[in-house]
Amino acid sequence: MIILGLDPGLGTTGWGVIRSQGNRLSHIANGEIRTDAKSPLASRLHMLDLALREVIEAHDPDAAAVEEVFVNVNPQSTLKLGQARGVVLLGAARAGVEIGEYAARQVKKSVVGVGKADKTQIQAMLAILLPGAKIVGADAADALAVAITHAHHAGAKSLGEQAA
Amino acid sequence: MIILGLDPGLGTTGWGVIRSQGNRLSHIANGEIRTDAKSPLASRLHMLDLALREVIEAHDPDAAAVEEVFVNVNPQSTLKLGQARGVVLLGAARAGVEIGEYAARQVKKSVVGVGKADKTQIQAMLAILLPGAKIVGADAADALAVAITHAHHAGAKSLGEQAA
Repeated sequence: MIILGLDPGLGTTGWGVIRSQGNRLSHIANGEIRTDAKSPLASRLHMLDLALREVIEAHDPDAAAVEEVFVNVNPQSTLKLGQARGVVLLGAARAGVEIGEYAARQVKKSVVGVGKADKTQIQAMLAILLPGAKIVGADAADALAVAITHAHHAGAKSLGEQAA
Repeated sequence: MIILGLDPGLGTTGWGVIRSQGNRLSHIANGEIRTDAKSPLASRLHMLDLALREVIEAHDPDAAAVEEVFVNVNPQSTLKLGQARGVVLLGAARAGVEIGEYAARQVKKSVVGVGKADKTQIQAMLAILLPGAKIVGADAADALAVAITHAHHAGAKSLGEQAA
């Protein structure tokens, strides 16, 4: 199964593609989609949509995984994030893939083994779980982490399919 | 100029299409797009996107107008609204139309003449400004109001074009 992890943001959306076979994971690609802060909001959302569409067409994932949102104390930030997240979820739904949403705590638990872990720990574990992956930045790392979380949650089902 | 006004929401998105010629306005159509609260979020955003695309294809607007968001005290509501708003703005950007965003105060001022007006006053003025329009609901009314606001702001320019 090919899984696309996504870390949505208006300024930067991280993405990461992995292959999950039984309990084996391998890295396929990762990247970050940036939009120009000087452009109008609707244009930025359009840029994000077009770039995400390219990623989906290039990697043809079977599933997408997105982190559930930590609702920011700053409502303007929440609104911005929500707008980008809406476009990202739409992109995944349009591709007809299954979509998993995971809380930050679940992602940390899947990748590091505990629900509380900092970014450095996550990145260190990514280097072990996806050896050889060159990760372009923090948002791409978060995207790979949520893709791994989806692989773990889908793991039992996938093993069942292999056994059949 | 044909203007599509939009009042985004995850549960209900209001839309209204008007024609603006010089300082004359006329009603073309209005409606509300509803998504099934029992469906997953991404599917709801996809339904919204498909329905909005149909509205845009049917009416081929020159411009779209959206109300600026009143950031809710409830961050979960802000996030929901943001996700729907992202999809709606994307739909307008994808259609290549000019997009105007207006504060609630500007919309009330354009339609009723004062920055503070309640929904009843707005609906009473809509009946006068767009005679004969059968408005399907409160969200469609808000969408028509923001379309009228855009017409007023674009009015001077439009008159200039007619004179040329």
